[in-house]
Amino acid sequence: MQSSRLAQQIQFIVEIDKLKRVLRQTLLMDGTRQENSAEHSWHLAMMAIVLAEYAPSPAIDVLHVIKMLLVHDLVEIDAGDTFCYDVQGNQNKAVREAQAAARLFGLLPKEQGAELLALWEEFEAQETAAAKFAAALDRLQPLLHNQQTRGGTWRIHGITRNQVQRRVGCVEEGAPTLWPFVQQIIEDCVVAGYLKPQ
Amino acid sequence: MQSSRLAQQIQFIVEIDKLKRVLRQTLLMDGTRQENSAEHSWHLAMMAIVLAEYAPSPAIDVLHVIKMLLVHDLVEIDAGDTFCYDVQGNQNKAVREAQAAARLFGLLPKEQGAELLALWEEFEAQETAAAKFAAALDRLQPLLHNQQTRGGTWRIHGITRNQVQRRVGCVEEGAPTLWPFVQQIIEDCVVAGYLKPQ
Repeated sequence: MQSSRLAQQIQFIVEIDKLKRVLRQTLLMDGTRQENSAEHSWHLAMMAIVLAEYAPSPAIDVLHVIKMLLVHDLVEIDAGDTFCYDVQGNQNKAVREAQAAARLFGLLPKEQGAELLALWEEFEAQETAAAKFAAALDRLQPLLHNQQTRGGTWRIHGITRNQVQRRVGCVEEGAPTLWPFVQQIIEDCVVAGYLKPQ
Repeated sequence: MQSSRLAQQIQFIVEIDKLKRVLRQTLLMDGTRQENSAEHSWHLAMMAIVLAEYAPSPAIDVLHVIKMLLVHDLVEIDAGDTFCYDVQGNQNKAVREAQAAARLFGLLPKEQGAELLALWEEFEAQETAAAKFAAALDRLQPLLHNQQTRGGTWRIHGITRNQVQRRVGCVEEGAPTLWPFVQQIIEDCVVAGYLKPQ
């Protein structure tokens, strides 16, 4: 009844349900719990739709960006979410995530798995305008969460302005017209005491 | 620093974070908790990517389907998730959701709000091939969840095969080549005792 191709696709769809259980450091905007990576990916895809006009190139392919954002965190199913300010955890992150990508995308029919793997690799490589725009949204989103939760994760971990500046630096190239807005959020959060000045 | 256009867009992005707190009846595939509508929408968008080849028309626009799936549950922020087998709750669902759509999409700049509202209305109207395919995925996904959780929500609410058949009936038109697979899942679930035979 079920072709082996469909069976592979369904197996992948069942497997990725696990992303809903991968918790990020970010809190929901009402502060009630940690965000998971599946709902985070949905939020980013919505941001790509709403903020497409701020992409660095007017010729950007929104479908491509959305697909990239929907798959960019799937590797966390095996590799876990690595907190961006965790120096040690980030040392072997690339290796852990590459292994996860091979396993997860390997569940799919060959050409489909290759397509999604290529999207993930493009995001990681940060060389194309689409990948840079996707990463800019991925940086802006937790900034909004931390602003809404009055410092949320920043306060818990004692994060400083300099750390956040380095983290969001890629927005300047990935979504240049959003850069002044990002700078203003950081400034406002320092003034409000949500973020350590240094 | 921030244009009123960008301010509106950010306000919308902040507002829709609330979808992460709208709980559905469906359990995660490991049965640990109820699924929320944001992660559900992510899962459906992933299914649209992976299962695009089963759309009824080869000319289907995948970006359009994905956008529709990403926004289709936003109205639940105000209207709540109405369990599909709740007869009473479904009586005034359309009115509640239309009011929610007007408020939520009204947060955006006019032409953007109109675009997303049109996507939601298209999904609700179930007249286009894209909307029918999107709905087919929206029916298939909880079927997979209920199979994986050995009857999950069906057992909790004593749902019967006939009820599920009516619920998933739209798959036959929305994704015809997936219809035999859907029938097989239902048959398997009845045999396994996950679903009441009638």
